[in-house]
Amino acid sequence: MQTVRVALAERSYPIHIGCGLLARADLVAGAIPEPRVAIVTNHTIAPLLLERLAGPLEAAGVACVRIVVPDGEDHKDWATLDRVIGELLAHRCDRRTAIVALGGGVVGDLAGFAAATYQRGVPFVQVPTTLLAQVDSSVGGKTAINHARGKNMVGAFHQPRLVLADMDSLATLPERELRAGVAEVIKHGAIRDAALFAWLEANVERLVARDPDALAHAVQRSVEIKAEVVARDERETGERALLNFGHTFGHAIETGLGHGTWLHGEAVAAGMVMAAGLSARLGLLDQPSADRLRRLIERAGLPVAGPPLSTQRYLELMAVDKKARGGRVRFILLERLGAAVIRGDVAPDAVRATLEAGVTA
Amino acid sequence: MQTVRVALAERSYPIHIGCGLLARADLVAGAIPEPRVAIVTNHTIAPLLLERLAGPLEAAGVACVRIVVPDGEDHKDWATLDRVIGELLAHRCDRRTAIVALGGGVVGDLAGFAAATYQRGVPFVQVPTTLLAQVDSSVGGKTAINHARGKNMVGAFHQPRLVLADMDSLATLPERELRAGVAEVIKHGAIRDAALFAWLEANVERLVARDPDALAHAVQRSVEIKAEVVARDERETGERALLNFGHTFGHAIETGLGHGTWLHGEAVAAGMVMAAGLSARLGLLDQPSADRLRRLIERAGLPVAGPPLSTQRYLELMAVDKKARGGRVRFILLERLGAAVIRGDVAPDAVRATLEAGVTA
Repeated sequence: MQTVRVALAERSYPIHIGCGLLARADLVAGAIPEPRVAIVTNHTIAPLLLERLAGPLEAAGVACVRIVVPDGEDHKDWATLDRVIGELLAHRCDRRTAIVALGGGVVGDLAGFAAATYQRGVPFVQVPTTLLAQVDSSVGGKTAINHARGKNMVGAFHQPRLVLADMDSLATLPERELRAGVAEVIKHGAIRDAALFAWLEANVERLVARDPDALAHAVQRSVEIKAEVVARDERETGERALLNFGHTFGHAIETGLGHGTWLHGEAVAAGMVMAAGLSARLGLLDQPSADRLRRLIERAGLPVAGPPLSTQRYLELMAVDKKARGGRVRFILLERLGAAVIRGDVAPDAVRATLEAGVTA
Repeated sequence: MQTVRVALAERSYPIHIGCGLLARADLVAGAIPEPRVAIVTNHTIAPLLLERLAGPLEAAGVACVRIVVPDGEDHKDWATLDRVIGELLAHRCDRRTAIVALGGGVVGDLAGFAAATYQRGVPFVQVPTTLLAQVDSSVGGKTAINHARGKNMVGAFHQPRLVLADMDSLATLPERELRAGVAEVIKHGAIRDAALFAWLEANVERLVARDPDALAHAVQRSVEIKAEVVARDERETGERALLNFGHTFGHAIETGLGHGTWLHGEAVAAGMVMAAGLSARLGLLDQPSADRLRRLIERAGLPVAGPPLSTQRYLELMAVDKKARGGRVRFILLERLGAAVIRGDVAPDAVRATLEAGVTA
């Protein structure tokens, strides 16, 4: 087991990475105020993993309320949150009952927002079961639900007490979701770590083949990068926005197609190719580096072009991005592989040209 | 104008109390990051006060988005919040657009929760227009919406940047709401300040008659007490719970009758009489003090007994109180007028007897 710490003063917490961690009731019990948890998971994960987590917890004397919600981004909404809150109330969960998210990014965001807002906030534990959630969404405290007009538009910052990333849970992950997780690993290399990027160029096929050592390395390095960025800018007033590389275009893709049509990681993959294309078009990034990023994403089996929405539609969808300020969209761009910047002064023509070049006809 | 500061390190903020404050665009402009606000108010307040706030702001160069929601506790729900979020998105409000709550406690709680969660949190300003909101709910950062199973069950702590309590806005307040506000002033005296309690015994009729000096004194003293408690315990891990005196019984009344049937202050008034009765029954408080509290509440024109729900129903409703721990309800009780304590070990029989004595047959 490897442990990475997220350093946030009194809200600091450990991320444990390894095999067999779902059964480590001791780790969960040590992180919560009372021996009682509400585990939130979905109908796909529940038959595979719920009892592997709840069984050992109950054996260790931790009472478990089980809350199973429908699977999918479409259900990361108020209706599902209302159900979760209703079940917490029906089971008399109080302010000291921890909420445990068992699942991918959707479950983590939803259960995390429930934890942030139930009775104005209760303790939270993340047990991410997808590669994407392990390398990205389970770390850093961002929680949210979607609004009809935009993804993640209602949310809160609420740090977990503990993150358990169990490599065993990736064994049953559908291949398409595994590849989507690789997109966020590539992102971490692209914005921050040329060595990770080069390692991915040498090892991306091992990741997709679920080599456990390769997966553990990718998770650990991703989490270290994310923890470092989050520790310096918890509330995304500056540097943390770099983690949104590929996400301005990516969120437009997800909202434009309807949430859940493309996986988040797939949308981010195409979004990174577009953002690198925009960087090259502006003369920030050399073309060979933009091409290297595109090739790596292609080798991971991920899309390298956006779906055929109109340029106008893309622009409208991007205008509501949370990073926008005073109506101006801010882009995360690359200066080189391993170094990103935020730019709020991108000429609209360059964005249009990038969309016209970067979208499937 | 009097100013009371709430001391919360980097989240400290001023509460201004006086006449003509709605027109003080300079105070608002100095507290927000960009000259753009979204004012949330309701259909009752809008024709009376919205332009008295928005007009001077626009004249001072602060752009105002106006969001008018239906009036009433019934609308402090997800459906209304969803509409507010939708309008913020439609107007391209971003993370630097401040949300201003213009109204009573319902508007403040709803707009505050929108500010806490829109794009994971935006700046917030409170302009309370009822006595209850001025003396209580606008100060301290508690925000929430109701769930079908309980009041204020989904919420967040989100401190405002500024509170403007304009005495002029009380001129048009319905008398029943004015009296409901007096309940919270009485609460502040009862839990913390024997001098304020004695002042109320001498001046309660002046308050109900809207004597401006009496109102300003009541608001200032209430806000000083609340600011002091909140500064010591922002997240209600201890002492802040004392401010919930009367609220455990009161919330049961509100939920049991359906939100909005009794005003919050009315339910708290009857709840305080019951909580003082329970305190006397347990031998904590002498009976003459409990009687003084009841008489003062009666003179303020407020209810001194709960509505006729069954004892069983009261007990069920109280069991989901947010102060409950491990299924055990915690009560705020009086030791004397001016001093309250939290007790988690109250014998169920004493609660039953209090309900049987304290509810209208």
